[in-house]
Amino acid sequence: MTATPALPGLPDILLEPLVRQALLEDLGRAGDLTTDAIVPDGARAQARLVARAPGTIAGLGLATLAFRLIDPAITLTTEIADGHQAAGGAVLARLDGPARGILTAERVALNFLGHLSGIATITAGIVAQIAGTGTRVVCTRKTLPGLRVVQKYAVRAGGGANHRFGLDDAILIKDNHIALAGGVAEAFARARARAGHMVKIELEVDTLSQLETALGLGVDAVLLDNMDLPTLRQAVSMARGRALTEASGGITPDNAAAIAATGVDMISLGWLTHSVRALDVGLDI
Amino acid sequence: MTATPALPGLPDILLEPLVRQALLEDLGRAGDLTTDAIVPDGARAQARLVARAPGTIAGLGLATLAFRLIDPAITLTTEIADGHQAAGGAVLARLDGPARGILTAERVALNFLGHLSGIATITAGIVAQIAGTGTRVVCTRKTLPGLRVVQKYAVRAGGGANHRFGLDDAILIKDNHIALAGGVAEAFARARARAGHMVKIELEVDTLSQLETALGLGVDAVLLDNMDLPTLRQAVSMARGRALTEASGGITPDNAAAIAATGVDMISLGWLTHSVRALDVGLDI
Amino acid sequence: MTATPALPGLPDILLEPLVRQALLEDLGRAGDLTTDAIVPDGARAQARLVARAPGTIAGLGLATLAFRLIDPAITLTTEIADGHQAAGGAVLARLDGPARGILTAERVALNFLGHLSGIATITAGIVAQIAGTGTRVVCTRKTLPGLRVVQKYAVRAGGGANHRFGLDDAILIKDNHIALAGGVAEAFARARARAGHMVKIELEVDTLSQLETALGLGVDAVLLDNMDLPTLRQAVSMARGRALTEASGGITPDNAAAIAATGVDMISLGWLTHSVRALDVGLDI
Amino acid sequence: MTATPALPGLPDILLEPLVRQALLEDLGRAGDLTTDAIVPDGARAQARLVARAPGTIAGLGLATLAFRLIDPAITLTTEIADGHQAAGGAVLARLDGPARGILTAERVALNFLGHLSGIATITAGIVAQIAGTGTRVVCTRKTLPGLRVVQKYAVRAGGGANHRFGLDDAILIKDNHIALAGGVAEAFARARARAGHMVKIELEVDTLSQLETALGLGVDAVLLDNMDLPTLRQAVSMARGRALTEASGGITPDNAAAIAATGVDMISLGWLTHSVRALDVGLDI
Amino acid sequence: MTATPALPGLPDILLEPLVRQALLEDLGRAGDLTTDAIVPDGARAQARLVARAPGTIAGLGLATLAFRLIDPAITLTTEIADGHQAAGGAVLARLDGPARGILTAERVALNFLGHLSGIATITAGIVAQIAGTGTRVVCTRKTLPGLRVVQKYAVRAGGGANHRFGLDDAILIKDNHIALAGGVAEAFARARARAGHMVKIELEVDTLSQLETALGLGVDAVLLDNMDLPTLRQAVSMARGRALTEASGGITPDNAAAIAATGVDMISLGWLTHSVRALDVGLDI
Amino acid sequence: MTATPALPGLPDILLEPLVRQALLEDLGRAGDLTTDAIVPDGARAQARLVARAPGTIAGLGLATLAFRLIDPAITLTTEIADGHQAAGGAVLARLDGPARGILTAERVALNFLGHLSGIATITAGIVAQIAGTGTRVVCTRKTLPGLRVVQKYAVRAGGGANHRFGLDDAILIKDNHIALAGGVAEAFARARARAGHMVKIELEVDTLSQLETALGLGVDAVLLDNMDLPTLRQAVSMARGRALTEASGGITPDNAAAIAATGVDMISLGWLTHSVRALDVGLDI
Repeated sequence: MTATPALPGLPDILLEPLVRQALLEDLGRAGDLTTDAIVPDGARAQARLVARAPGTIAGLGLATLAFRLIDPAITLTTEIADGHQAAGGAVLARLDGPARGILTAERVALNFLGHLSGIATITAGIVAQIAGTGTRVVCTRKTLPGLRVVQKYAVRAGGGANHRFGLDDAILIKDNHIALAGGVAEAFARARARAGHMVKIELEVDTLSQLETALGLGVDAVLLDNMDLPTLRQAVSMARGRALTEASGGITPDNAAAIAATGVDMISLGWLTHSVRALDVGLDI
Repeated sequence: MTATPALPGLPDILLEPLVRQALLEDLGRAGDLTTDAIVPDGARAQARLVARAPGTIAGLGLATLAFRLIDPAITLTTEIADGHQAAGGAVLARLDGPARGILTAERVALNFLGHLSGIATITAGIVAQIAGTGTRVVCTRKTLPGLRVVQKYAVRAGGGANHRFGLDDAILIKDNHIALAGGVAEAFARARARAGHMVKIELEVDTLSQLETALGLGVDAVLLDNMDLPTLRQAVSMARGRALTEASGGITPDNAAAIAATGVDMISLGWLTHSVRALDVGLDI
Repeated sequence: MTATPALPGLPDILLEPLVRQALLEDLGRAGDLTTDAIVPDGARAQARLVARAPGTIAGLGLATLAFRLIDPAITLTTEIADGHQAAGGAVLARLDGPARGILTAERVALNFLGHLSGIATITAGIVAQIAGTGTRVVCTRKTLPGLRVVQKYAVRAGGGANHRFGLDDAILIKDNHIALAGGVAEAFARARARAGHMVKIELEVDTLSQLETALGLGVDAVLLDNMDLPTLRQAVSMARGRALTEASGGITPDNAAAIAATGVDMISLGWLTHSVRALDVGLDI
Repeated sequence: MTATPALPGLPDILLEPLVRQALLEDLGRAGDLTTDAIVPDGARAQARLVARAPGTIAGLGLATLAFRLIDPAITLTTEIADGHQAAGGAVLARLDGPARGILTAERVALNFLGHLSGIATITAGIVAQIAGTGTRVVCTRKTLPGLRVVQKYAVRAGGGANHRFGLDDAILIKDNHIALAGGVAEAFARARARAGHMVKIELEVDTLSQLETALGLGVDAVLLDNMDLPTLRQAVSMARGRALTEASGGITPDNAAAIAATGVDMISLGWLTHSVRALDVGLDI
Repeated sequence: MTATPALPGLPDILLEPLVRQALLEDLGRAGDLTTDAIVPDGARAQARLVARAPGTIAGLGLATLAFRLIDPAITLTTEIADGHQAAGGAVLARLDGPARGILTAERVALNFLGHLSGIATITAGIVAQIAGTGTRVVCTRKTLPGLRVVQKYAVRAGGGANHRFGLDDAILIKDNHIALAGGVAEAFARARARAGHMVKIELEVDTLSQLETALGLGVDAVLLDNMDLPTLRQAVSMARGRALTEASGGITPDNAAAIAATGVDMISLGWLTHSVRALDVGLDI
Repeated sequence: MTATPALPGLPDILLEPLVRQALLEDLGRAGDLTTDAIVPDGARAQARLVARAPGTIAGLGLATLAFRLIDPAITLTTEIADGHQAAGGAVLARLDGPARGILTAERVALNFLGHLSGIATITAGIVAQIAGTGTRVVCTRKTLPGLRVVQKYAVRAGGGANHRFGLDDAILIKDNHIALAGGVAEAFARARARAGHMVKIELEVDTLSQLETALGLGVDAVLLDNMDLPTLRQAVSMARGRALTEASGGITPDNAAAIAATGVDMISLGWLTHSVRALDVGLDI
């Protein structure tokens, strides 16, 4: 097995429960009936994790954990590090050890690896498209249940950055909050009073007039929701030096470069995590 | 709240841990800072879950659980049942209750609903494409970690059927197993000896000659891997009345109808669950 | 410690939670007061697990896990493998390591070993009684709560086979289902429509006329409930080549051979798992 | 549903995890396929829990919890209380509610009820045999993993009493402890120094000379191991007023009355919990 | 029972596991032996939670959860809200319901209530001492294992504010980080590159020269460690309008007012949570 | 790492869940942002755990577990054993290993160590004050939720002893139980009938007349509640040889010696565990 921890910056005790849950989900009550019946107990195997299509890799550490949790005697040696681009056909890692364990853990390892590499690949693609603009690509809370921490890791592996991890690490005031507070100033004041000094406050605005109000209140960031390009350009100009700007809503690979060209600090994309096309990764023995 | 259990056929004690985990993932340690700061404790709200695009709905019961676990005082009334097609803009359900709870549970509820409806929608699409052929659409074990049971539910909601839920509910003998056993006959014999009488055995074959061997052994089903159309047609013909046939590998919306026209019993599609595009669902207050 | 995994075919991550739970149940909050008070910290001991009566052994791997979870410095070397017959007084395994850990884990290790060996012993007994008939001995879902997977393992260690592991890995249609569906044909049709292609369907029948109906529907297996020998013989004859046959109800060591002589494929016995007499196993230092 | 808590003296939060675990073990990933396929969603049923043989009942509260956890809409009304004797054919409880939930929870409910009633029945039998002697019947730590607390409850329901619940609620000094301490006096002194003032100390003795030593040390109780009747009688006489006496080892229904007649305070029986014959209990719709 | 959720801003699903764990810790395996033996099953009781000394109350919701989890039939009506000052002898809440449940849950409820009210009381004391200065009292990560979220709640109930909840919701660069990075500028640059845009960065400084560097880098806040009053005054002056200032180290009730008078934005106090004197709260029947 | 288990007498499987919970509480979802950003992956560090004030140490094993769970490559070598007195400035242990892991686990390790050493220190202080009297210092159930077992360990490390660990390991009859039973004799009789023979019974008394009743019943111990010194002295005299005596209520460092001088067997102190002042322990790199 390779370095500790499995994913850079995330101690294994954070990730093992997730990998364990995935393995138990696949093993059910009775374990791997096919392998148990057919593969001799002492058989050994060498195998390769192979990218069947080009892409940016993420999640090799989770694959490592999956094999290790099934049998610590399996060794996995990576040929590439997370965050790097693999060519189609490239060997990502080599496995050696008990054949039973390799076959039993294979699907779970590939499910993690394909999904996270899918996220890293699309993130890297959009990052490349806006290269040179100074705009960051960020993900959202539109993640798949139970997978947020590893999905956000994959976004970073692809060159993106993370927005909030949850409801408790920053304040994001949206339309509904404002309506229920009776106004933006009141909403902000309540947030300011409640938040600890290490908690940032971002405010969602739809119009330039709302933006002006938000900037006057001293927010840390503004979410510029679904603005057309000219409005967005003006918003960015107004906010410069006063608050970070985040463009959100309706951003696609087609219009990302144009939006980034407005000088906005960030573009946030729900589909990086909620609509992921897996990278095709396989295991060859 | 509506009927018991939340998802038809799946008692709530199977699903509550999953929804609870998703909520805790979003709440973190400190809970919903924004709502806690801004929304008055006694405020009530009415809200609607709305499809922002047309699709087949799945997972309303998980949304229901999400709101109920945050605050049992929230009522959710569905306007459509899982497995039905919603038009773009259609109201899926109406919510009434404490505003705080509605806002706090919103994202988790939508994350489940959007993902499962995405699965149901694409499944329904492919089912429609092969309508009239008698071929079933089935999913695989290429699911997202932790979500298998609900993903497979969504496939059924979209009109598809389920392959194995895991490694322990049926035997599927693949190339690697055969190689490690030293031959297909030996592999099958070991499987037959190990399996209980309620466990089916399927065997993966790449060629017609392998197929003939498999049929001679008395397998319950054959997985016909990546065969071209003429070969597949012949394979189906050979297997008729002797074993169920499953076509697998490289099946896309473009070639599904042609493959189904061969008379194969099933087509299995990993991308129903590993590469899901979420249906856009929102909450309007 | 010996081979990986502790029980053949069952990865340790499936079993460790069970052994851990049993140890924690015995340790309570404060641990082993007696050993902590009396046995010096550095003391080492050699010990033997000994069968105090003859029987078929099952569960040495769980004993191994129990000692390892209390102290990884304890080594356990088996002298016999699961599934083999031990004479009264036979040494099953030898232990060496810290005396404290050996004494603390002793009772849990023995509780598993005695219970599973009791199951294996009675299973082996009934298997021996019907040797030569081609009939298999199978267990049921009448297991002790929390212990199903290891009880079913012990049945296999004793030479028996497993029926369903739970409600979700096969369909078994009983009287009550038929009554609530309004007839056997309707019940079967609904089951066939719902079940994935890898799920078998068995149907319980009380009479030969019901059997004829079931066979006509194409069930995979029939549960022949409480039939007398002549009826059973006729049922087996009718079903031959059309469905697997399982005799159930009222089967005892006394009548098992006669029932097997009818040519029925399986006899299923609830008492293999619900009414177990433990094999007397002890630890000698 | 009936009274709170499910089992007298044991708050439901102690027992729900156990019942939940048993249900999840049976439901697996996919739930009750048979019932889901066949039984209509809105169907209701009335059912009876029936003793198919006479016995002392224990565990109705666990059955209640099993049905409630599957569907809170099921009502269960008991016709007999735990600890009472039921005639063969007696109705133990009546169920009313959604048919699906009743069928899905049936097996788990019966597994608990049959096992615990089996324990209560054999306990009540041995208690009856020694009635009038003043000797108490007690169970041991030879319990089935995960089930200790409910097994010990069943012993009480049958009229017996409980020895230690685990390694941490009292001190029991056995041969191995004494050997490792270098003598009985030293072992006792260490135990006395370590134990809190609310912790009793019992000492195992094989001979009258050891007994004399133990009594001189001031132990709370002595375990008289495998003594013949005359020795036991003398031991009881020596210990009277100085320590409680427990006879252990080789006690069977055949010799229990004679042993009790020695005046020993307790007889302890491992087979009350490690070799249980389930009471036959069924569910009739 | 009173409002949902038990603690304002913290949904019950966040807190129930903590209260459940505390109850199970007290119940052990066998439950409340004393109450089970002595208190009749049907007995009801009225009781009062009473402050035996004056203090600021926090945690009534956790007491409520403790009683509800033991028996939902117990009603608890609060006479005071968290965050308010109670006189010695004041009734905090009234209980009505099954006597057994009230006695069984009593100690756990009081343990939570006494500890959190102790925190709120000392926090309120220090807040009062610096009233009028504009300086906030904040807690740290020096909390008791497992209790962080409720301890931090209690600090807010006492009028204080919260610093980081953990290692992942903000960045705090200390001496060791700087040393391992090879300088403060490098450390800050790495932090800025890694952190999402909603993550604040605070930097610990010991000297005014370090402070000047930190301010030049654009940190969000500075932790002024163990500075004497004149230095602190100058530091506050330098940082005004450029970064938030936090005084830390050696702050006691005796010097808090003088430190606050420097105009520092926050004083942080580990002893609010690591060295808590419980408020004496009792239950009277 | 040092000896197994981490805390003498408490197998690691009892303590790891607690340390794991504490680490996860601190890591949150995203882990240690600061260290991940700033400290290079391969950096190593040597560090010392240092007492910043004199005190009796307890909990080094929990610190060891904290570092090991974050990174098994960290080695910790203790310089002092639990239960010993450290001078201010004394090095308690030396750490060597990956710098990231040391920094990430630091706070949790210190939080355990400071809290438990605080308990051991104050316990040792009161034990020293009453040295020579034969009276034992015991703690109560007034512990902090989730921490009981380690708090009680720390009391022992400081030279004290433990009262009940929970509601299930002994019987303590208080005023409310007596009132609900209708009298002390009835309460005791019910307790005696319910309790197993290894369960002790203690009775709380306020007056000498109650004491006389209790002694007549044959209780194992009496809790003498809030008696003045002359009454206590007389109570101790009455109880000598008949029951253990425990003084409780209002005992402080100031009056402990006088109370012990009465000859009472134990003094019980809630504040040993509910009002703990942490020992100041730090980590120096």
